[in-house]
Amino acid sequence: MIRHIVLFTWTEEATDEQKARVVTELGKLPGQIPQLRSYTAGADVGVNQGTWDFAVVADFDNVDDYLVYRDDPGHQAVIAEHIKPIVAGRAAVQMSV
Amino acid sequence: MIRHIVLFTWTEEATDEQKARVVTELGKLPGQIPQLRSYTAGADVGVNQGTWDFAVVADFDNVDDYLVYRDDPGHQAVIAEHIKPIVAGRAAVQMSV
Repeated sequence: MIRHIVLFTWTEEATDEQKARVVTELGKLPGQIPQLRSYTAGADVGVNQGTWDFAVVADFDNVDDYLVYRDDPGHQAVIAEHIKPIVAGRAAVQMSV
Repeated sequence: MIRHIVLFTWTEEATDEQKARVVTELGKLPGQIPQLRSYTAGADVGVNQGTWDFAVVADFDNVDDYLVYRDDPGHQAVIAEHIKPIVAGRAAVQMSV
């Protein structure tokens, strides 16, 4: 299985509405991309200081299925319209599990 | 459930042996910390450019169980002896799933 992980920090100017919209829009993707085996997206809960703001963890059967998700037009639209406008930092890893 | 996610970049000087040792040492933790419900740790597989080097995803029933892991002496020893010497960058999020 391939696990795709992305962490984000948001800009200082990002509003709560914009941040919530990212959750809403990403939450639609599992219904649109059947290759997604498991999908969790959400904000840092504030247990520790110095953490980043938001995480996405997506599981796929194989790399090809991950690439379908990565390049999916609906996913790309969420990135372009809702994530990029408020992103300050991004860190990603694809790992084999 | 609480999901703890950490991404790392390693220093240029980090050896393959040092990186492999991190996997080995972290892999012992599920047998030592019963609060861990799920644990995956591994290197980026190289599908994309610009990714970070290594990821850890750990699931717990609740925040208190995560804190047991975070503060566990065996875990802290792995961080001090095997991770900190080769870490260049670290990004973490704790999310509710």
